[in-house]
Order: sequence, then structure tokens, then C-alpha cells
Amino acid sequence: MSSPSASFSVTLRVEISGSRLVGAITTVLADAGGAITALDTVESRGERLVVDVTCNAVNEEHAAELRASVEAIDGATVRAMSDRTLLLHLGGVLATESKVPLKTRDDLSMAYTPGVARVSLAISRDRSAARNLTIKRNSVAVVTDGSAVLGLGNLGPEAALPVMEGKAVLFKRFGDVDAWPVCLASQDVDEIVQAVRMIAPVFGGINLEDISAPRCFEVERRLREHLDIPVFHDDQHGTAIVVLAALLNALRVVNKSLGDAKVVILGVGAAGVAIAKLLISEGVGNLIAVDRDGILEPDWSTLDESRLWVAQHSNPHGVRGDLHTALQGADVVIGVSGPNLVTEGDLRLMAADPIVFALANPDPEIDPALARRIATVVATGRSDEPNQINNVLVFPGFFRGLLDAGATKITSAMELAAARALAAIVTEDELSPAYIVPTVFNPAVAPTIAQAVEAAAKGD
Amino acid sequence: MSSPSASFSVTLRVEISGSRLVGAITTVLADAGGAITALDTVESRGERLVVDVTCNAVNEEHAAELRASVEAIDGATVRAMSDRTLLLHLGGVLATESKVPLKTRDDLSMAYTPGVARVSLAISRDRSAARNLTIKRNSVAVVTDGSAVLGLGNLGPEAALPVMEGKAVLFKRFGDVDAWPVCLASQDVDEIVQAVRMIAPVFGGINLEDISAPRCFEVERRLREHLDIPVFHDDQHGTAIVVLAALLNALRVVNKSLGDAKVVILGVGAAGVAIAKLLISEGVGNLIAVDRDGILEPDWSTLDESRLWVAQHSNPHGVRGDLHTALQGADVVIGVSGPNLVTEGDLRLMAADPIVFALANPDPEIDPALARRIATVVATGRSDEPNQINNVLVFPGFFRGLLDAGATKITSAMELAAARALAAIVTEDELSPAYIVPTVFNPAVAPTIAQAVEAAAKGD
Repeated sequence: MSSPSASFSVTLRVEISGSRLVGAITTVLADAGGAITALDTVESRGERLVVDVTCNAVNEEHAAELRASVEAIDGATVRAMSDRTLLLHLGGVLATESKVPLKTRDDLSMAYTPGVARVSLAISRDRSAARNLTIKRNSVAVVTDGSAVLGLGNLGPEAALPVMEGKAVLFKRFGDVDAWPVCLASQDVDEIVQAVRMIAPVFGGINLEDISAPRCFEVERRLREHLDIPVFHDDQHGTAIVVLAALLNALRVVNKSLGDAKVVILGVGAAGVAIAKLLISEGVGNLIAVDRDGILEPDWSTLDESRLWVAQHSNPHGVRGDLHTALQGADVVIGVSGPNLVTEGDLRLMAADPIVFALANPDPEIDPALARRIATVVATGRSDEPNQINNVLVFPGFFRGLLDAGATKITSAMELAAARALAAIVTEDELSPAYIVPTVFNPAVAPTIAQAVEAAAKGD
Repeated sequence: MSSPSASFSVTLRVEISGSRLVGAITTVLADAGGAITALDTVESRGERLVVDVTCNAVNEEHAAELRASVEAIDGATVRAMSDRTLLLHLGGVLATESKVPLKTRDDLSMAYTPGVARVSLAISRDRSAARNLTIKRNSVAVVTDGSAVLGLGNLGPEAALPVMEGKAVLFKRFGDVDAWPVCLASQDVDEIVQAVRMIAPVFGGINLEDISAPRCFEVERRLREHLDIPVFHDDQHGTAIVVLAALLNALRVVNKSLGDAKVVILGVGAAGVAIAKLLISEGVGNLIAVDRDGILEPDWSTLDESRLWVAQHSNPHGVRGDLHTALQGADVVIGVSGPNLVTEGDLRLMAADPIVFALANPDPEIDPALARRIATVVATGRSDEPNQINNVLVFPGFFRGLLDAGATKITSAMELAAARALAAIVTEDELSPAYIVPTVFNPAVAPTIAQAVEAAAKGD
């Protein structure tokens, strides 16, 4: 199902015994399913040539196949294969910089000692001045324990670091927020909460990331209790906000209303719970949550506090059964579960003009091409499909707004405002089954969300 | 003793009823001891003028006096007085930046998902790859609990933040190190140690800062035990390295040797202990440590572990008494104590060609002008005197070397190598009583120290 992508781009350095072999290389790579994006001659001595061929692959096995296909050419030797993504991450993708010149002794005496003493004294007299006189004005900790890194599982803090760094550079690029990765050396809830409390003085906000459920709920709840800065678990609330925005627009496409729609959520992890809560608070009346054991029922003994809340506040008609039962006559299905759990046949059970959000990453609940045969609107988490439900649409602008407002907590009014603002960026003219969310490169996205969040924070 | 400095530069916005009053303003400010550095006319309407006068002051009281002196002019009104250092720190002095372009979807797919998953997997297979593929390659945590902020005392973590930020920008400017401020919300040793252990995965080194003695010794010792990255308390070791470098050159000036010199250290706090240890390990035989109770004796019950070590390894002739006893025939006195504890008369007790390091900040143990009447070489911590003993000469290059070497710990061989390298930057031609350490803006300083530390780390 996957196709070659820039996210897995390799460069093969190939030595060949004659220039006519260049054509052979491009041919075998294309035949093996590679997408060539660049070809450079590095060295040329008589008939001996060294060329760098850059080529998008599907995955690691495919890259190995591509290499083998070139090796198999008589007269060609692969000297090296490098992975452009790994090269990009060499030495990290995040850096610090000074906002002030440090060219003269006077500069030093103001940025650091002895002048800085006066800044410290000003804050010691009024602790809240730290919001104006330090990076706390603009800083967010991207906190993880590495227990649920992307879809890869429990890889630990070091392996989570490139993801948190990547997130930090997106924070800067799209929200002008100074975010710093905090990868914690423990997965114990008490220790996580204590560590974040300890480092909180430097930050204006906390973004929790890739912490596995149900621990993430308790970590967030306790931090929100203790801290005077906003705490936001992006996998929950960021996802929920983008999903609500996309859903508002998808319903506009099929001319249905949120209050009347029957919405099925497949997967009741961190994202599923947050989506359910946000949709319910925005007015979805008929919501059914389904996990691997079927439709959630309030009397299940296995439910933690968050899932119990969802069970108690969803399924108004008390339907019992599995996904198939739930999908009967449904207007919307939102998958936040795992790959290939939904079939074309399942979608046929839905009402007219089905809306399908298949958000499992990297492989959705159903191949979007298949889903489009039945559904009117299809969205996924993939960047190579239309309607990408991507948290980066929300978190930079959301935190920008929190920081600008000097917010001390996050309210559902802010989340709803952010979702509505994001949805409204897509105009009536632009709206279509293949365009329900703006692209992340639309420069209006972050400022619009920031403004909505700031207004909500100020109670406007 | 203090003179006006750029570290306390104020801008007065003054409205005057006639241009002839401009001269009156500059006159009264000069008479009141202010040093005018800029004068701009902001608005001019007939005889009404608004001017901005920027002026260096000595301290807060002096700034208030300057303002009052202008207010007293008939026809002049001070509209506002702003503090340039506070303005410089508005919103903080540190920021993050992305090292990679984020212009296209392909850029995103490599810097973040889905490409970054491959970087995470590479690290999960080999944890040490984090040193190459993440910011850990180049990052240092600047950690404090705010218990001993500059010479100001226990101001807490928020008030310490501008200092740590200032330090972070110096790390960047002089060592190209990505440093991040970590101001901890507790001053309990166990909690500090635990918090730093928790956040360590992201960092290639830990710089402890402004943590009061004797807690700083235990924090450092325990962190060094637990972590696989170097831990360096700058107030101890950074100071000790610069002092040793300066002392090596001061002894060259007066043609004495380290092994024969009698060295008195006044003040046995964090810095004093570290200086004593480093000087002893470099071969100072006759070292006497003096605190407020006199010459340290090993049988005092009040000594913590670090001071006990100093007492046991110093004072080879078992001299008992106070500072005056200690100074009899001394070649060097190094003050790391408090203001004005040493008199001209004290210095007369010393041997020929006395070397005086009066490092208390902002006010030295003795006015350097007085000290120069007796001493051949005088050094202070002040930026407005020759021979400034400033840690910024060491920490950027020292950590640069540690990171480049991938060092897991700090050895005294590295510290000695750094001190010798720093001293050697001053050539025979340059060396003079007023030039025993290079300026921080000398571009050779950080690379030279880095190279020395890296070589020592590799055991060359």
C-alpha cells in the first residue's frame, strides 16, 4: 500500500566502469520501485565514473532491495548507501541562539554579570516578572518518557529525543515558540510528575508527548493540579482539536449537522478518549465508542477513569455489540486504533455519504483508496493523501495563544475555539471532499488559532 | 569605589521647555556623576522638546539621584526612566532555532514524522547513537536551584533564570554549545539529584551553577556517581581553572615557581575548596587556607568533608592563627570571600613582589588601586579593572572539548590541561603585570581550551 517517500530517501554512491551504465542504474532502480530524485556525477576518470543517485524508498527492506538491484549490474559497485533522513538528524535538528548581540564588554555586562543581577533582583521582588524578563515568556517543554514513541512503542527516552527535537523545531517554525525536549529517564508516574514540577519554573507551558495510556491521563491531571502553567497532552487534545475541525468541515461537505450525526470512534486510547470528550462538549449527541472488546459499556470492570467517563457519556441508546453493530447507520467513523481493522464491507453498513477518518499511523484502519469507493469524505494521518489530520496544524498556534495570553490553564472553551478557528480557515469556495483542513504551510493557520485561544483565555 | 558602567545604563525621557535646557541636563547629570553615552531628540515642537538621554549609573540609588537632578531643573520634566539592561532582557535573551529547512512537506517528513521514526529506531537499537543523531551531541544543562544567585544569595529559581539564560547565550557565543537553563523548584539535595538524573538523557553535559555550599559538593558528587555524562560545578572548577591559569602567568611575571610559592587562600567556600585542590594537584606545596575563624585546622569539628580534605592537605608547617599570621612572607593571596577583608597593611606582611587576587564580587577583598601600591600583580573579578578572572574564559571551551570528546566524566588532568592551555595563550611578549589572562574576546581562547580538554579526555 505504501509508496516511496522523501521521508525515506537514500543516496547510493555507485562506481561504474562506463558512462553507458548510468542508464542501467536508473532503469533497475525504477524497475525495483524506487523514485529517483537526483543524480550527480562525483568523479570521472576516463571510463571510470562515480555517481550519487538519490532515490526515495518505501522502507528499510525496499532500500536494501534497491541497493541489491544496482549491485547486480555487471560493472557497477555500490560504494555506500546513506539515508538522507539520518544525515539530516546528524548532530540534532535543534539549536539555541542568542537574541542579543555579544560583541563588546558592554554587551556582556548587560546580558550577563554584573548587569543581570538587576534583572534577578527585579524578579525576586515580583516572581511574575519572570514572564516578561526571561524566556519563560515564550518557552514550552516537550515532555516524554519515551513509553509510546510515535506508533513504535516503548523505545525509551533517548530514542524519543529525535521526535521531541523535531517537534521543537516545528514549534519554532510555525508558532515562534521556544520549545525544548525533555526526555525523562523514568516511566513511573510519580517520578514523571515530580520531575516536571521541578523543571517548571523555566517554562510558560508543558506539552506532554508520546506517554502511553492510561498513565498519560494521571500525569496530565496531577500536573494540571500542581502547576500554574498550562499542561497539554498533544496526543489527546491536539488530535481532538484537529479531528473536530476536520469533522466540522466534513459535515459541511455532506450537509449534515453535528447534533444529528451518529459518530463511531474506533479505539479508546489517549486520542480516542480526548476526541470523544471534545465532540460531546461540542454537541455530538449520538457517539459510540468501540474498542477491541466492542462497544464500551459503563459496567465493564476493566475501564479506567477516563474510559469510564466516555462509557457513561456516550451510546445514549445503550447499543451493545461490536464494530459492525456500531457502524449500522453511522454518519461518521473515526479510527484511532490500528492498521486494517475496517473493511470496505464495514463502511457499507453506514448511512448515506459516510465520513471516514482512518487515523492509525503509518498504516490507516483502511486503505484510503478502498475507503473512497464507499465514503464521501476520507481523511488519514498520512502526508501523501488528501485531508491529512496532522497535530502540527494545532499545537504551534495553540501554545502561541496560551503564551501570549499568559494563560495558567487550559479550558475546553479554548480547545473548541481553536477547532472552530481552524475549520473556518477553509472557505466555502475551497471546501471539498478532498479539502477539509488547510495545509500546515498556510500562514494563516497558527496566527488564527493563537488569536482564538488568546481570546478564549481572556474570556472574550 | 564603584564607577558608572554600561551594566547599569538608564535612558531618561525628558520634556523641556526650550532647547537651551539640553545643556543644563548634560551639566547636572555630569555633576551628579553620571556618564552620558547618548542623547537623541525624540520630538520637537517650537520651543517644546522631548529628548532621550542615555547615561551610565553606578547603582539603583545613583540612578534615582540622576533622575532627581534632572527633575530639579526649572522647565524640565522626566517623563520616564528606563533601564537598558532590563529592556535587553525583555522576553529573555535565549531562543531556539531549527538547524534544518522546514519549507516543504518533504522537509517536514524528514525532520519529523514519518521519517524521524527511523532515527528513533536507530537509537533504540544502539542507545549511544543519540550522541550522533540528536542534540545530545552538543547540549549542556545549566542547572541551578537559585540558592546562591551571583553574590545576591538565595533568590529562588525564577530569579536565577536570567543568569542561567545569560550563561546559556555565552555558551553559544563562545563555545557553540547549545545550553538550556534548568532552574529547579526545590533546594533539597535528594530532589535536585533526582531531577537532574531524570532530565539527563537529553544532555551531553551538566553545568551546575549558583548552588550554595556545602550542598553543591554533595549534589555534584552524587550526580557524578550516577550519570554517564560529565558534571561540572562552574563556581568551583571553572573558577579554579581560571585562577590557576592566572597564577601560572603571575608567577612568570615575578619569576617565582609554583612549587616554592607560599599561597594563601582567603575564603573556603565552593570556589576556595576547588582552587585549593587544583593548586595542590598542580604542585603548590605551601598552601594555607583561611576562613573567618582563621587558618583551617584538621581537628575543627565544623568542617564538612570538602573543607576537611583541604585542612588535611594544606598548611604543611602546621601554622596556627589568623589571616595576618598566614600572610607572613606569603607570595600569593587569593581572596574568594567578601568585600574589604584585606587591608594595605596586610599586604605589607607578604614577601617581595606580592601577587594579589581579590575575587569577591562585585566588591573585592581590597580596592585594586590600594592593592597595586604594594602588590606587583593584582587581579579581580571586575570587568573595569585589568586582569579580570572571569569564568567565561573557561566554561565554553571546556564543555566544547568535553562534547567533542564524547567525555563521560571530568578528570583533574582535563582541568590542569585547560588551565595550562589558557595560560599559554598569553605570549612572553604580551605578558605583563596588567596582562596575565587573555580577554574573553580573544578568538583563540575557547578552541585552545577545547583542544586541550579533548586531548586530555582521550588520554593523549
